Amino acid sequence: MAPPSHCHATNGGGAPQHNGANAVDAPVTRSARLLDAEEFRRHGHLVIDFIADYYAGLGEYPVHPSVSPGFLRHHLPLEPPPRREPDVFDAALQDVRSVILPGLTHWQSPRHFAHFPASSSTVGALGEALAAGINVVPFTWASSPAATELEMVVVDWLGKALHLPESLLFAGGGGGTILGTTCEAILSALVAARDRKLAVIGEDRIGDLVVYCSDQTHFAFCKAARIAGIRREHCREIPTYRDDTFALSPTELQAAMQRDVDAGLVPLFLCATIGTTQTTAVDPVGELCAVAAPHGAWVHVDAAYAGSALVCPEFRGVIAGVEAADSFSMNAHKWLLANNDCCVMWVRTPSALVAALGTEQEYILKDAAAKGVVDYKDWGMTLTRRFRALKVWLVLRCYGVEGLREHVRSHVRMAAAFEGMVRADARFEVVTPRRFALVCFRLRSPKNYRFAGGEKSANELNRRLLEEVNAASSGPYMSSGKVGGVYMLRCAVGSTLTEERHVREAWKVVQGRATSILRKMEIIM
Amino acid sequence: MAPPSHCHATNGGGAPQHNGANAVDAPVTRSARLLDAEEFRRHGHLVIDFIADYYAGLGEYPVHPSVSPGFLRHHLPLEPPPRREPDVFDAALQDVRSVILPGLTHWQSPRHFAHFPASSSTVGALGEALAAGINVVPFTWASSPAATELEMVVVDWLGKALHLPESLLFAGGGGGTILGTTCEAILSALVAARDRKLAVIGEDRIGDLVVYCSDQTHFAFCKAARIAGIRREHCREIPTYRDDTFALSPTELQAAMQRDVDAGLVPLFLCATIGTTQTTAVDPVGELCAVAAPHGAWVHVDAAYAGSALVCPEFRGVIAGVEAADSFSMNAHKWLLANNDCCVMWVRTPSALVAALGTEQEYILKDAAAKGVVDYKDWGMTLTRRFRALKVWLVLRCYGVEGLREHVRSHVRMAAAFEGMVRADARFEVVTPRRFALVCFRLRSPKNYRFAGGEKSANELNRRLLEEVNAASSGPYMSSGKVGGVYMLRCAVGSTLTEERHVREAWKVVQGRATSILRKMEIIM
Repeated sequence: MAPPSHCHATNGGGAPQHNGANAVDAPVTRSARLLDAEEFRRHGHLVIDFIADYYAGLGEYPVHPSVSPGFLRHHLPLEPPPRREPDVFDAALQDVRSVILPGLTHWQSPRHFAHFPASSSTVGALGEALAAGINVVPFTWASSPAATELEMVVVDWLGKALHLPESLLFAGGGGGTILGTTCEAILSALVAARDRKLAVIGEDRIGDLVVYCSDQTHFAFCKAARIAGIRREHCREIPTYRDDTFALSPTELQAAMQRDVDAGLVPLFLCATIGTTQTTAVDPVGELCAVAAPHGAWVHVDAAYAGSALVCPEFRGVIAGVEAADSFSMNAHKWLLANNDCCVMWVRTPSALVAALGTEQEYILKDAAAKGVVDYKDWGMTLTRRFRALKVWLVLRCYGVEGLREHVRSHVRMAAAFEGMVRADARFEVVTPRRFALVCFRLRSPKNYRFAGGEKSANELNRRLLEEVNAASSGPYMSSGKVGGVYMLRCAVGSTLTEERHVREAWKVVQGRATSILRKMEIIM
Repeated sequence: MAPPSHCHATNGGGAPQHNGANAVDAPVTRSARLLDAEEFRRHGHLVIDFIADYYAGLGEYPVHPSVSPGFLRHHLPLEPPPRREPDVFDAALQDVRSVILPGLTHWQSPRHFAHFPASSSTVGALGEALAAGINVVPFTWASSPAATELEMVVVDWLGKALHLPESLLFAGGGGGTILGTTCEAILSALVAARDRKLAVIGEDRIGDLVVYCSDQTHFAFCKAARIAGIRREHCREIPTYRDDTFALSPTELQAAMQRDVDAGLVPLFLCATIGTTQTTAVDPVGELCAVAAPHGAWVHVDAAYAGSALVCPEFRGVIAGVEAADSFSMNAHKWLLANNDCCVMWVRTPSALVAALGTEQEYILKDAAAKGVVDYKDWGMTLTRRFRALKVWLVLRCYGVEGLREHVRSHVRMAAAFEGMVRADARFEVVTPRRFALVCFRLRSPKNYRFAGGEKSANELNRRLLEEVNAASSGPYMSSGKVGGVYMLRCAVGSTLTEERHVREAWKVVQGRATSILRKMEIIM
């Protein structure tokens, strides 16, 4: 790959000399030109066309670039450009096109099936652009009143659209906030729970606190617990089993909590997941809450991926009993068209959050509460915040709840179609029943055939299959998982641009590569 | 204010009925239309023109809206729109213009002098738009190679531009990452320091750890310490004094650390600030590091605001001795034209960060390190990340180091001019000498005049002055601070659109209001 044509690469490295005195005498209108409305308009239209062209041409890119570590950094100059060159913006866009785009993994490709989606939409992307342009910092109500109030409105709107219980909405005494990531949501809830508990048992007992999850819970949870000062060995990852579709067992949770209580420890927090990363397993929230309640443990529901599906009434059942949960979060940037980043968290008792994360005197908080508004800096870890509510509001306003349902259902239908294709080919098996839009599948264990070695060989075979599937530059990009010792391929349908033909083509590639691998191994199926 | 004309406001509240079976039979091309290239182009151009018009008309808005809590939320429908209406995007933009913009605090107004800036630039805003459109999630190198490598390059570029020591750069064995906020940076560094210390003294001694800062340090630090499980009473906010320009005294720090050691506690972490929020005080980093070193305490330098000024060689002196610091962070979204959010953090020993925040097995980390790349998810708290490097790269690429210097200097010159105007009016005093682009000033204590009551009355007088200054709808918007019992006005020059005339006009408003207040109080100066 050719290095980008940065004029400054020819800079001899000599730092420009400045004369403080002269600088002070220079005219003072320079700054304004950095945000000149007409220059913004001209360059902005270039950027919009650039993005539109990118979307139109996404099918041309391999989803995942075949590059080696260092391919880009070793080709960029070591020093930043010393000064502005003429027409530099156009040249920079050209660099993005020729140097940066070819080295990206294209999450918006219709053939991206590897990760849960980071779904783009016209409205989501432009909502981000609009918020970036307006560029306010709504950390308190006063620091941008409309931004705070819009956030309060849209979290209730979204909560209703997702069929969340009223107790989690402002309308029902709870409330929500828009953060960047689930990591932040979990950490915020955990710190609120921790401080509420320590206020009762004493701050010196932090070392006795225990948190719970399943072995399918995203690693973000144990990481959050470590950040919050929970001892590493006090994060209980309770084993799950294929027979239970890898859901967390209330019986096992009860046993684990009791063991800890018997050992003089204090159950603090349970992270239940709706739609785990590996297989979209659904933990039984209601039953788990019933187990946690006698221990006074906080229950957080992490629906990072599958939360978006709750917009469809047919999925309401997966959160049965969520009324008893203390907090709930989902990533609207994953499957709800609200471009990265956008995690929405709701809590049943905002006062617990504010007690842990608030930075004001009690009377100021009461004052804000009396006025019916909030200072969102006290609801999360960060003071600086982006105007994410604008994007969420635009997505809901423009697509409507029905539009979001159609979006989710289209992916669910496509995943169902893919699942059907897998089932129709006797060489393959579906590892766990599809629930949302992820299909976990693999070539069947070849132990009944000439190839021997059992599960280990089956894993090796499927590892090779994934490698070859992903090596096809115009083919799909999938990922893998390993549950209960079983290595499997993951086909996550969710890119906004994915259509049924992409799914069919992806399956053809999988079949073709499987045939070729099995043939090479002289396995006649 | 009239409620927005949402068609859905007329929705009777009956949730639309869905038939799961029919939904499955519907055609599967719907999703694609949510990201149609031509629709994106059409709507994108509307958004660009919207933002350009906003910039062009920013002078017309009062910086801070005169609205009451509930003004917006009580006028929006309680339910989200059920479905997409024709031409809804245009209607939504119209709502932004007529309902949302008038309720915002306009951080980009040339008359916004209240907070440290959230500086917009054409390139920063469009960098955000471009990243939102491309919408990749670079949490590991593999998840978007070019995004990770560009980040590695630009943090070194920026570190060099800011005259940071090589030990903090990848080029010197350290390294940097781009996070959202200083809160995240401080917490990440603190957790790294905590785990490094606990690995030595034992995990059960978390309750003995003590962190240090000054009483001028941003509250984000003590909040981060609480999040990390440090006891509330173990956050030492060491008093500062006007005679020391509110800088943290190494002698006082030494005494505080020694007291804690004598009490059996363990000094863990010092947060030194370059440019405090209230008065832009500069803590003497080198001397403070020398105090912390014998205790093995981690020193983080928070240069959230003033870090941008380091792009000018004439400011290098303020970080003298920074070579000995463990980590350093600054907000490029504050004063370096890289729209919200964009906090860059550098650390001297990335391995400490990864040991605390990493989620991989040791061999995977070694593998990545051997290849000379990093997985940035292990450098911060969040897994999901935005492609912020694109924006930082574009800002450096397009404006060049020299352009950034001119930008910072123009604000410094304007603030110096404002300071000069304050000093030229005998009724006023500059409370602390201006160092960057913030002027802290007030009406002199009126105790020598007919008005009596000493400092308390002086504070009341200045509180009233600020209120009246901010009440002028076409006037400047300033804020206040209180240091050493002294209430003062803060005029922070930093909006990209601010020109010298805005500063002059702002001063005229201050003078005018002061004259009127003093006259009303029958004080003849």
